[in-house]
Amino acid sequence: MHCPSCFAINFTLDVVAYTMAKSNLELVDECDKFPYYEDNPAFYAAHLKKHHAFRVNGCDAVLGYILNSAVAKFHWPAEYWTVDSTNQTVTLNTAPDATPEQRSKVMDETLRAEAKRGNFEVLKGWRNEMYAVYAPGGKFLLEMERCATPLFGVVSYGVHATCYVEDEHGLQFWVPKRAKTKQTYPGMLDNSVAGGMSTNERPFECLVREAEEEASLPEDVTRAAAKSVGCVSYFYVRDSRAGGEVDLLQPEVDDGEVEEFKLYTVEETKKALANGEFKPNCAVVFIDFFIRHGILTPENEPDYFQILTRMHRRFEFPTASHFAH
Amino acid sequence: MHCPSCFAINFTLDVVAYTMAKSNLELVDECDKFPYYEDNPAFYAAHLKKHHAFRVNGCDAVLGYILNSAVAKFHWPAEYWTVDSTNQTVTLNTAPDATPEQRSKVMDETLRAEAKRGNFEVLKGWRNEMYAVYAPGGKFLLEMERCATPLFGVVSYGVHATCYVEDEHGLQFWVPKRAKTKQTYPGMLDNSVAGGMSTNERPFECLVREAEEEASLPEDVTRAAAKSVGCVSYFYVRDSRAGGEVDLLQPEVDDGEVEEFKLYTVEETKKALANGEFKPNCAVVFIDFFIRHGILTPENEPDYFQILTRMHRRFEFPTASHFAH
Repeated sequence: MHCPSCFAINFTLDVVAYTMAKSNLELVDECDKFPYYEDNPAFYAAHLKKHHAFRVNGCDAVLGYILNSAVAKFHWPAEYWTVDSTNQTVTLNTAPDATPEQRSKVMDETLRAEAKRGNFEVLKGWRNEMYAVYAPGGKFLLEMERCATPLFGVVSYGVHATCYVEDEHGLQFWVPKRAKTKQTYPGMLDNSVAGGMSTNERPFECLVREAEEEASLPEDVTRAAAKSVGCVSYFYVRDSRAGGEVDLLQPEVDDGEVEEFKLYTVEETKKALANGEFKPNCAVVFIDFFIRHGILTPENEPDYFQILTRMHRRFEFPTASHFAH
Repeated sequence: MHCPSCFAINFTLDVVAYTMAKSNLELVDECDKFPYYEDNPAFYAAHLKKHHAFRVNGCDAVLGYILNSAVAKFHWPAEYWTVDSTNQTVTLNTAPDATPEQRSKVMDETLRAEAKRGNFEVLKGWRNEMYAVYAPGGKFLLEMERCATPLFGVVSYGVHATCYVEDEHGLQFWVPKRAKTKQTYPGMLDNSVAGGMSTNERPFECLVREAEEEASLPEDVTRAAAKSVGCVSYFYVRDSRAGGEVDLLQPEVDDGEVEEFKLYTVEETKKALANGEFKPNCAVVFIDFFIRHGILTPENEPDYFQILTRMHRRFEFPTASHFAH
C-alpha cells in the first residue's frame, strides 16, 4: 500500500511528440508526391509543364519526366538526342529497331560525358550499377547507370524484406539503422533488407543477394524463410535527404549499408514511424505489412482506403515484367 | 509390366480450355473497366462525355457518374434537382447546410417515385437496404437505396472473406456456388462470405453479420478467426451478368445466398478462375490472396505490377472513413 504523503506522480506533457506526430497517410504522402490528374487537372497540367517527357525512338510511350531545368543544363549530343521544346520531349534517336545494347551504349556515353562535366550532383554518385528501362508489355528497352535514373524520372525497382519473429511478446521486427556517414538518408531507420534491382536481376534473386550483403543472411536461410507478399508503388520526388539535386523524380528507389540492427515491437515501430525516423519508402513497406497482418484496419486507421490506393500507384509509364520464361 | 500390344494412351487435346483461359490480368480487367486518363486522355474525355457528374449542393466533389441515357430517362423533380446539360451535372439541390437525413429523404422520395414509374430494371430489385455516400474526408453525406447506387455510379463498399484450411495437402478454400435462381451472377463461384456494407455498418461487424447469414458461422468463431488483410478497389461497369441495365457504373459491389460449399485446392481455384467460373470481384479477391500468400509472384505472373495497381484503384470520388472514434 502506498503512503499518500510519499506517493507522487510526476508527469510531463509530451506535446511536441503529439503535435509533430506523422499520420500514416502523411508518411505515404512523403513517398507518393507527384500530383494526380483527377485531383486537379489544371494543377496536374501545370506541374507536367515543368518537365520534358523522356522518349526513345521506336517506342510509343513516355518513359519518364525530366525537369526542364535539368534538360537545359544537360548536354544532349545532337547525333543521338532530339530536344523538342514545343512538345517538351527529349528523345533518344537511335534507330527504331535498335537493340537494347545499342541504346544502352549511347545512353552510357552521354551520361559519362555529362558526369565528367560535373554539373549534376546526382551524377557524382556514380555506382557502376545498371538499372533497366522497360517498354510497354514489360519488354527490356535499355539499361542506364543507377545514379542517373532520377534525372530521367524513369521507374526503378527494389526489393524490401521485413524480417520478424513472433513469440509470446507478439511480433518483433529486425530494424537496421543506416550509417550516419551515408550519402542518402543518413541515420534513418530502414527495412531489414532492401536493395535496388539491377538489369537482368529478378526480385527473389535480388533479395537473396542483398540479404547476404546487408544482413549476412546465408542464402539457404533466405530461400527457406522468404515469401513474396506484394508490391508497393509510389511516385517519389527527391528532397534534400536523398542527396543531390532536389525535385528529381523517382518512381521507387533504394540503398544499403547498416550501422546496427535492433528488435522493434509493433508499438516501437509505430512510434518510430510517427516520429519520422524511417526512410520514407521503408515506412510505406511497414504500413503495408501492418495492413496485411490486421494491425492497421479500416476501424483504427482513418485514412485506410486512401493509404491502400496511394501505395499501389499506377504509373503513366510502362513497367517491368520479371516473369521467368 | 505392361504388355506393349494392350497398352495404350488415349489423349484428347484440351484446346478450348487453353485458348479460352483467362489470364489474371484479364480477370482484373473484367472488374476494373472504366478507362484511365493516363492511358489515353482523349478517349477518357470522350468516355466521360457519356455521363453526367452527380453532385450535392454544398459539397465540392463529384460523387459518381450517371449515364446520359439514364439522366434523360429519369424524372428529376425540379424543386430538388438541377440538371445542367452544358456542364453535364445532376445536382441534389438541398440547402448547403442540410443534414444527411434531409438529403437522404429527398433522395428516397425521388427514387421511390422513379421505381413506381417502372422505367429502370435495376430499381425493380428494391431491397430496403441503405448504402452510404461520403463527402471528402470520409464524412457521411447521405444514404440511398442499394439497388439505385449503380444508377448514380457512387462508390459502394463490401466485405469479402476467404475461409481456408491449411494441412498436409496445402491450402484449401471454402468456395460457395451461387444459386442458379439468383438474379445476379447465377451459378457462379463466390468468396466464402461476401456482402455489402449498409449505412453505419463497419467492415468487421458487417463480416460477422454476413458470416452468420450466409455461411452459418457463429459470431464467436468469426470474431476469433477473422483478420483484416487489406482492400481491393476497382471501377466496375455492369454487364448482363449483373442483371438490369448494362454499362451502369459501380465502383465495387456485392451479393448473397449460396447453393453449396466445396473445398477447393489452390490448383482447383486457379483453374476455376481461368475458366471464368468466379463472380468477377470474387476472382479479384482470390488474386489478392494469392499475391499476399506468395502463390502469385513477379516471377510466375507476367502482369504482376499491372494487377497490383489495377486492383487498388484510386477513385476520382471521395471515399468512406470507417474509423471508430
